[in-house]
Amino acid sequence: MLSPTIAAVNDLKWDDAGLITAVVQDRLTGQVRMVAWMNREALEATLSSGFATFYSRSRRALWRKGDTSGHVQHWDELRVDCDEDVVLARVHQEGAACHTGERSCFFRQLRGSDRS
Amino acid sequence: MLSPTIAAVNDLKWDDAGLITAVVQDRLTGQVRMVAWMNREALEATLSSGFATFYSRSRRALWRKGDTSGHVQHWDELRVDCDEDVVLARVHQEGAACHTGERSCFFRQLRGSDRS
Repeated sequence: MLSPTIAAVNDLKWDDAGLITAVVQDRLTGQVRMVAWMNREALEATLSSGFATFYSRSRRALWRKGDTSGHVQHWDELRVDCDEDVVLARVHQEGAACHTGERSCFFRQLRGSDRS
Repeated sequence: MLSPTIAAVNDLKWDDAGLITAVVQDRLTGQVRMVAWMNREALEATLSSGFATFYSRSRRALWRKGDTSGHVQHWDELRVDCDEDVVLARVHQEGAACHTGERSCFFRQLRGSDRS
């Protein structure tokens, strides 16, 4: 059971690059769809628009997920971890979350994981 | 449906500090329990021991989750994202995942999330 207590955007601990890790989870299936990064502007855009918006470290630009693919993420709930340096977005995902077309970016096992 | 393809530890993209983000998910409930960081040594220890092991950025040391609390994480499956810079560990968690005693570190909502 998750506690109803609240954290504020001002409480968040941004890293040296001004970013926070964002885990995106399907709100219905619980599948972890992707992990990306947000700066404060991306998080504020996420909060105000209702759509998950990230900061692309490679392109150094805001990136609303699905802007080109149509695979937007409507968020239902945003949570913050105890260290206030990770956000968990529970979303409704339109289409695939991964640019490869997979539902989740975590479509591969790590070798060594089959210990049977 | 997740693909059965495999990624190797050698494929992983470590950041400038030699770390990779690790998302820990309950293998039964799907709850995201915590997010932490691993260096290569922590990941190798995770793979070989069967217990989730992280790198503490504050203490600059390996840290087997639960070593002091008993709240160890037996991993069942390790997955890698498309960018090969995040690991998803699906685990059986003994007790609470969070040092606060909460089952998940994500026990707080982010303010602004109630848009009703």
